[in-house]
Amino acid sequence: MKNNSEENSRIEGRNPVLEAFRSGKTVDKLFVQEGCKDGAILTILREAKKQDTIINKVTKERLNQMSETGSHQGVIAQISAYGYSTVDDILENARKKGEQPFVLLLDGVEDPHNFGAILRTANQAGVHGVIITKHRSALMTPTVAKASAGAINYVPVAKVSNLGNAIEQLKKEGLWFVCADMDGTRMYDLNLKGPIGVVVGNEGNGVSRLIKEKCDMTASIPMKGDIDSLNVSVAAAILSYEIVRQRLF
Amino acid sequence: MKNNSEENSRIEGRNPVLEAFRSGKTVDKLFVQEGCKDGAILTILREAKKQDTIINKVTKERLNQMSETGSHQGVIAQISAYGYSTVDDILENARKKGEQPFVLLLDGVEDPHNFGAILRTANQAGVHGVIITKHRSALMTPTVAKASAGAINYVPVAKVSNLGNAIEQLKKEGLWFVCADMDGTRMYDLNLKGPIGVVVGNEGNGVSRLIKEKCDMTASIPMKGDIDSLNVSVAAAILSYEIVRQRLF
Repeated sequence: MKNNSEENSRIEGRNPVLEAFRSGKTVDKLFVQEGCKDGAILTILREAKKQDTIINKVTKERLNQMSETGSHQGVIAQISAYGYSTVDDILENARKKGEQPFVLLLDGVEDPHNFGAILRTANQAGVHGVIITKHRSALMTPTVAKASAGAINYVPVAKVSNLGNAIEQLKKEGLWFVCADMDGTRMYDLNLKGPIGVVVGNEGNGVSRLIKEKCDMTASIPMKGDIDSLNVSVAAAILSYEIVRQRLF
Repeated sequence: MKNNSEENSRIEGRNPVLEAFRSGKTVDKLFVQEGCKDGAILTILREAKKQDTIINKVTKERLNQMSETGSHQGVIAQISAYGYSTVDDILENARKKGEQPFVLLLDGVEDPHNFGAILRTANQAGVHGVIITKHRSALMTPTVAKASAGAINYVPVAKVSNLGNAIEQLKKEGLWFVCADMDGTRMYDLNLKGPIGVVVGNEGNGVSRLIKEKCDMTASIPMKGDIDSLNVSVAAAILSYEIVRQRLF
């Protein structure tokens, strides 16, 4: 039995997990014991599919390890401590403020400290919302909340299955997309004033090729250094504040 | 006996510690057992004072706890894994590159992850060196090295007893000083093009009053958010890159 803050948000056992789904809680991940196929588990899996929850089939040993109560009955749900918004909520947030939409998209940011730091900066830079992917991303956990210095409560975060589809949806709403990449145009030479979506990539690999191809512009931050790159939360901050600056002048 | 990476850099026992001083190693902190006054300890204390090392008098129990070998003989030295530079080295670095000096001063940044992230950004922004204080600061530890993504090997770091004196010394060399503070002038409205020192403050308290008074300008980053502040490494990055931008245009 481990005991860390991430696990405060786990629900164990068939009835509690089903109840969590039915009461509208956001389940980030569902862990189900391999081979379990009885009625109660099938009902839970149906609810999970309805909500497009990530389902992990794991061994009984793995569940035993994860379990805090010792009676998981073959199923553990990881609940999000913080509610997610939708892409529409983010657009509505911009509309309510009478501002050009300014959205940040994270293409696989995995480190919860980076994700939290990005939320903190997003709040201060006036970003209307952050879009993350369901897979291979840090989710809204207590570690993220702490690193965000409370900003997690103010910045709408939408979690999508496919970042490319979200970009297409937002392009129809008039947004332009810029991705952060070392090989791009110097950010000062781009016009970043209109309704905009900023894409930053994974800590190791940057923005993926498919997402890069969907973007209208590629922006680079000048780097004079001897090392490879900036921290992703720092890069997101510098690019976001270039947009803040351009919008002011 | 604890065992973490920070402690790989401790030297224990009278002869090894004295040898560390005499061979020119940088001792960040010296721990001496209270009441120890014999010749060998007095010689070590003399060397420590010569190098202006922080001396902590501690109980034998504390030394026993810290000790990895079990034979500290009343003295443990915490060695810096990375060499420090001087303020003159930093100026020389700017001179060699034929650039206006661009120096970052940390007034009590305590978190090693923040310090490391600042070094990483400093390297990319073309900062010629970072000045930290001996007391109440994260020092050059392996945690900092990791967070810096290797930049610790490229950015000269000078450690001073008194940040105010360092500012006075650099003013004589023609540098202007700007400190980051929420109540300052919007950074876009300041001329930050000349030889410059940028001061950022402690995570909790910002830049101290005495240091603020020594600065020529106070710069604020526009903040639209619902929370109090930006992370110090993010604030340092945004302000540093405003300087990069102004110098380019």
